[in-house]
Amino acid sequence: MVKSWYYRYEDLYDYVVRFFEHLQVPSEDAKIAADVLLLADLRGVNSHGIIRLHTYYGGRLVNGRIDIQSPIKTLRESPVTLALDGGNGLGQVVAHQAMQRCLEKAEKAGAALVTVRNSNHYGIAGYYAMMALPHDMIGISLTNSQPFMVPTYGRKALIGTNPIAVAVPAGKERPYVLDMATTIVPLGKIVVHSKAQEDIPEGWGIDRDGRISTDPNAVIDGGALLPLGGSDLMRGYKGYGLSLLVDILSGVLSGAAFADTVGRPNDSNPGSNVGHFFAAIKIEALRDLMGFKADMDQIIRLLKDSPKAEGQERIYIHGEKEFERAESGRKHGIPLMETVVASLQEAGNSVGVPFNPQPLGPVD
Amino acid sequence: MVKSWYYRYEDLYDYVVRFFEHLQVPSEDAKIAADVLLLADLRGVNSHGIIRLHTYYGGRLVNGRIDIQSPIKTLRESPVTLALDGGNGLGQVVAHQAMQRCLEKAEKAGAALVTVRNSNHYGIAGYYAMMALPHDMIGISLTNSQPFMVPTYGRKALIGTNPIAVAVPAGKERPYVLDMATTIVPLGKIVVHSKAQEDIPEGWGIDRDGRISTDPNAVIDGGALLPLGGSDLMRGYKGYGLSLLVDILSGVLSGAAFADTVGRPNDSNPGSNVGHFFAAIKIEALRDLMGFKADMDQIIRLLKDSPKAEGQERIYIHGEKEFERAESGRKHGIPLMETVVASLQEAGNSVGVPFNPQPLGPVD
Repeated sequence: MVKSWYYRYEDLYDYVVRFFEHLQVPSEDAKIAADVLLLADLRGVNSHGIIRLHTYYGGRLVNGRIDIQSPIKTLRESPVTLALDGGNGLGQVVAHQAMQRCLEKAEKAGAALVTVRNSNHYGIAGYYAMMALPHDMIGISLTNSQPFMVPTYGRKALIGTNPIAVAVPAGKERPYVLDMATTIVPLGKIVVHSKAQEDIPEGWGIDRDGRISTDPNAVIDGGALLPLGGSDLMRGYKGYGLSLLVDILSGVLSGAAFADTVGRPNDSNPGSNVGHFFAAIKIEALRDLMGFKADMDQIIRLLKDSPKAEGQERIYIHGEKEFERAESGRKHGIPLMETVVASLQEAGNSVGVPFNPQPLGPVD
Repeated sequence: MVKSWYYRYEDLYDYVVRFFEHLQVPSEDAKIAADVLLLADLRGVNSHGIIRLHTYYGGRLVNGRIDIQSPIKTLRESPVTLALDGGNGLGQVVAHQAMQRCLEKAEKAGAALVTVRNSNHYGIAGYYAMMALPHDMIGISLTNSQPFMVPTYGRKALIGTNPIAVAVPAGKERPYVLDMATTIVPLGKIVVHSKAQEDIPEGWGIDRDGRISTDPNAVIDGGALLPLGGSDLMRGYKGYGLSLLVDILSGVLSGAAFADTVGRPNDSNPGSNVGHFFAAIKIEALRDLMGFKADMDQIIRLLKDSPKAEGQERIYIHGEKEFERAESGRKHGIPLMETVVASLQEAGNSVGVPFNPQPLGPVD
């Protein structure tokens, strides 16, 4: 069993900002990137948080494969639509700007959508969808990613784990926040199992010969993830279809890379040319906001108060567990596995920003 | 083994038009409804086709629970958004008009979305998404439906099989057409197994006590369908999340019924108050159409030409099998099970439009 330690959120945040600033990322952008990365850790999506600080971002900044100088360019624009070129910038910074412009358009037009080409890995998709919430809008955020999903009846990883994130405001209840990979689990989850030296459940992934494997490293090294649904009988082609849809909207519609042409973080090519898709819907364009929020509260309560399966005590709404984890994380600290801390220390030293946050105490 | 017979597409189409006309549906509307219903049979989605002619439509027209007189009303409108009240009309007719107006708006604005409340079951979701294809647009069609899905950790059917349909044009290749229930299978698939007197695979549904059951009738009578993904370990909460999302966009955002308040076809209440959501994206608003289509062809070929799993010969793109079935169906006829024919004969007689198409021959 691998040990974990609690760290203060603020200490980790300050460290990540300094890490990015040291790599010449402008201060405002460094704060955005830190905010996105650590929201993942706060929400318990540790696969997409600080664990990736060096592999996905730091390393690529050091070797110039992410370009923080190049401006974000507008390719096509109307009051409702916007196509951007991210200039191979930090995914978080590009995506944050894209969603902000999407929200501005939707505020005026009632709805808007933005595509982005030539970007990089942007962290958790849900961050950008949730940007819509304070504006009483529904936010949608999609991105393609390096190939790791095998299509139904195939044996080669060709499509990404391409997440779908949608955030919807409610009234007294917490917002609905779906943020899901279209594979059964994201690659990051396999990596977490690998770092924790634990097997993965049967059915999540295949090895390089196309056989179901419970060894996370066999999946990572030349294997592939199965789409949501899994087998054909259980309709895995639906997960494959959703993943392909995300690639069409994020990659093909934006003019970015798609399928197995999306760059991997450790590729030697200069840009990974990741594509994103954002949309926002202003609720008041379609109905009265109060009525909408009251109905959201009602559907949430109706689900939560319904009879439970044997042995279960709660029915959850999407995002609910994550909101609770974030509250706990801000109060009690964020748990990091010692293997993750070791890799942060190593990366920090190599870059010249030693990892200095001190643990609050061990996780029981 | 239940026998099936081939019927000419044109004969079935003429019959369905006459059936609706006899029930006072205006001729133009009867043709739309017949077109939607029979496209399901043509594409092999027999669960959503003529099998439902009486239960979902004819019966409700006869007893006045669908209102074909009431006009479709505009509730809110902008150049980009439109909220409609379907006046409890035939779902196919309401949805067809809604998507047409969505396409007109998207042609001018680059993208558009339409919500509909107070409608009825609209047949296959994919029909309306595919209406975007001749306009070089991406079409999206969602609807909620009577409760049949159990939320993760629950034991009661509370959410519909709420389908997601998206159609995307390609160049030389066939379009991508996703049309999927967010449960593992739609209720109609269970009904088909019931009519064919066949067990269902383990894992598709539960009985009224919350236990996995292979008896289709146990699932239909007080049981529930499992969301895409199935168990918690295999991430069934993602399918549950998608289903809930469809209900939020179709039901809550439109001001229609949602969750277990959506009417069932055999309810005694006058309207089922089904909600729909449609969207269209004009490709040229975001990038050059030729480049988009070339990239669509490329991603489709890349997937289809990739290495196959052991024992598999083809990798499919979503909608591909259905396009092939439709071609075959127009040429060789549409297969109907004899139990389905018997129910059509019974319904036809009761309504006063005897089912008169003659079989072309038996299905081997």
